[in-house]
Amino acid sequence: MRLSRYFLPVLKETPSEAEIVSHRLMLRAGMIRQSSAGIYSWLPLGHAVLKKIEQIVREEQDRAGAVELLMPTIQPAELWRESGRYDDYGKEMLRIQDRKEREMLYGPTNEEMITEIFRASCRSYKDLPKLLYHIQWKFRDEVRPRFGIMRGREFLMKDAYSFDIDEAAARRSYNRMFVAYLNTFSRLGLKALPMRADTGPIGGDLSHEFIILAETGESQVFCDRAAVEMAPPGDVDFEGDLEPIVAERTALYAATDEMHDPAAFEALPEDRRMSARGIEVGHIFYFGTKYSAPMKATVQTPDGESVAAHMGSYGVGVSRLVGAIIEASHDESGIIWPEPVTPFGVGLVNLKPGDAEVDPVCEDLYAKLTAAGCEPLYDDTDERPGGKFARMDLIGLPWQLIVGPRGLKDGVVELKNRATGERETLSPESALARLSAG
Amino acid sequence: MRLSRYFLPVLKETPSEAEIVSHRLMLRAGMIRQSSAGIYSWLPLGHAVLKKIEQIVREEQDRAGAVELLMPTIQPAELWRESGRYDDYGKEMLRIQDRKEREMLYGPTNEEMITEIFRASCRSYKDLPKLLYHIQWKFRDEVRPRFGIMRGREFLMKDAYSFDIDEAAARRSYNRMFVAYLNTFSRLGLKALPMRADTGPIGGDLSHEFIILAETGESQVFCDRAAVEMAPPGDVDFEGDLEPIVAERTALYAATDEMHDPAAFEALPEDRRMSARGIEVGHIFYFGTKYSAPMKATVQTPDGESVAAHMGSYGVGVSRLVGAIIEASHDESGIIWPEPVTPFGVGLVNLKPGDAEVDPVCEDLYAKLTAAGCEPLYDDTDERPGGKFARMDLIGLPWQLIVGPRGLKDGVVELKNRATGERETLSPESALARLSAG
Repeated sequence: MRLSRYFLPVLKETPSEAEIVSHRLMLRAGMIRQSSAGIYSWLPLGHAVLKKIEQIVREEQDRAGAVELLMPTIQPAELWRESGRYDDYGKEMLRIQDRKEREMLYGPTNEEMITEIFRASCRSYKDLPKLLYHIQWKFRDEVRPRFGIMRGREFLMKDAYSFDIDEAAARRSYNRMFVAYLNTFSRLGLKALPMRADTGPIGGDLSHEFIILAETGESQVFCDRAAVEMAPPGDVDFEGDLEPIVAERTALYAATDEMHDPAAFEALPEDRRMSARGIEVGHIFYFGTKYSAPMKATVQTPDGESVAAHMGSYGVGVSRLVGAIIEASHDESGIIWPEPVTPFGVGLVNLKPGDAEVDPVCEDLYAKLTAAGCEPLYDDTDERPGGKFARMDLIGLPWQLIVGPRGLKDGVVELKNRATGERETLSPESALARLSAG
Repeated sequence: MRLSRYFLPVLKETPSEAEIVSHRLMLRAGMIRQSSAGIYSWLPLGHAVLKKIEQIVREEQDRAGAVELLMPTIQPAELWRESGRYDDYGKEMLRIQDRKEREMLYGPTNEEMITEIFRASCRSYKDLPKLLYHIQWKFRDEVRPRFGIMRGREFLMKDAYSFDIDEAAARRSYNRMFVAYLNTFSRLGLKALPMRADTGPIGGDLSHEFIILAETGESQVFCDRAAVEMAPPGDVDFEGDLEPIVAERTALYAATDEMHDPAAFEALPEDRRMSARGIEVGHIFYFGTKYSAPMKATVQTPDGESVAAHMGSYGVGVSRLVGAIIEASHDESGIIWPEPVTPFGVGLVNLKPGDAEVDPVCEDLYAKLTAAGCEPLYDDTDERPGGKFARMDLIGLPWQLIVGPRGLKDGVVELKNRATGERETLSPESALARLSAG
């Protein structure tokens, strides 16, 4: 992409309304623009990151055997009356009347709707297990939306739902998502810890939050350092027994403030006690027949008995992750994208557009980087070098390839690593080889 | 994908509420499920097609130089007051009050919002042209939603918006989208004709609808047969002059009922006069400063003058296309997907699951077809062959690869072409080679 054709409205000043670093950086880097309180447009740079995250989440859901569908944003109130949540859910639910005065709402979550879809066609244990997910915009009318897209009103979530014949089978579905989440967050370049959680308004017996560590995190967490150091499960057989993987992780102490047990924590060797700040990026629940029983989502067992399906739900905050990754990965100069989610692979900086020596080298590098799948962002604008450098640092692409007349006299360009700040001068060919190999 | 793990709730009976063939087939094939009037869930098979179409639309937008972003679904009323459309837009606009009694709405289109985004950062002719698009769910509270997702209330649309310094430049952006649309519809396996259109409520001077031909289409169209036979522009230089391509197409007679000029039509040689049924799948508009002037989206010209940007908007009905493609491509037995949008490339039918001869051959074919990128749907269920054949025909994958004990005695399997009905017996290796080559 040529920057001159792109739409990257970076801000010179730090917006005063932004309280946290990810919000400030997203506004400054031209990633988002507020439309109304807690509702944002995703400008091209922000959208590109959002799509990368969404795709990684999708791939790991698919790998775990979940099947994608898509439910609408607007739901009928009667569905929520069936589960009893229509009245329970407070003002956070955005309630709507359509032109025929039917009561509708903008879905804050989809347990009711997926249960309705399930019960319409699944009637037998033979139809189980079912593990379905979608990635869709949700709305929660927060009383005080803040922190940019971290606590917005309209947000993108991946929510999966499992249906099983009994608790033991439901536990296997739960484990699938547990393992999928560890892999997902690891692929996103994050250290995410599962922590036993309160089941809250969704209800149920078993629940874990997935918390990533970030100095600027919203909540206090306590954990065993061994949990932080544990590698993700990786390429496991999702048809096999996942219980050992889950057991190994859940055995290690990890708790949010709310669930913290100081005695258990103090029992750890001192060098393994870790207290840190964290951000919730995922939440999984097993809640049995809480929805299936009132909504009559029943299946026949092999014995001909009719039982309510055992359900779980599994959420990842896709849009929230954009902010969470920035909270976990930035410095004074701006964002530092982990490679898997970076909006562009490399920033190609032409220090003197219009120059007869520099332009052809840049054009050639741009074409070759594009062909090699490096997704370059080519800064071909007229601005001064200082402004170009600052902007590249701000938007945080992993690599900057800087091409100017002085270097070219010696046949070299400069390659800068955004995370470490290391710079290297090398020939354009070597730079290309290095970037293409990555 | 193994069918036993998938979620494909096909219906045995034809749903009585469905008036048109695409709606009937989408319900029968388990592609969608109605949630409330005009609002549908996209079940896995429907969702897979929707995603394929969306991706083709996206690629052709990108190729034409448009830049993707994403605007939210919920918009503030004040934006629409600025353009004057808040009161003009009737009950089709879904109006919402949030918990603080702010007036909001579910966006039926995004001219106002993109204009606000543009004016916040683009101030100079140097920032132009800008061509931005998003693919987002919209809501129009139709008084009588019908025809399934063809005239639903919540629908997925690609809408692009262009900003230029004057009418001549705006015309170049218009031409980009004109050409991109011809390529898009061609890649989707459709014959789409641009027809001069009424500008309607969006207003403006210049507008074309893109209509695909389908016997069951909603509207009557009249055109020069030469227009139907014209090849798509293909791999053109979008930075070059596109006017000749557009002029060549717009010179040929093509009009909907509303815009029909019988005299001009009758002037054609008789063998070129074609009257047919059509479905609108895209609509492009140039409307000058209709929004930019009242919303003060102005830019400085090279002379230092301040002028309102010249705008256009360009829509493709992404979810509507799913239905339109079915209207254009089906038979008595079901859907016939064009290869580029098929949810799976081939249906692998195991006629005797559990059989010691058949299972390993199917498993091997399934693994190899998957590895070759053929996206097989493997029917590993216990149903009878008759039911399996009918279901495969109904869901319309381009190829069926049928494996049974009788054929395997002679070392052969059967390959069926869904569109032509042609069947061929051949070795599993030959079938694999054939499908992988496609």
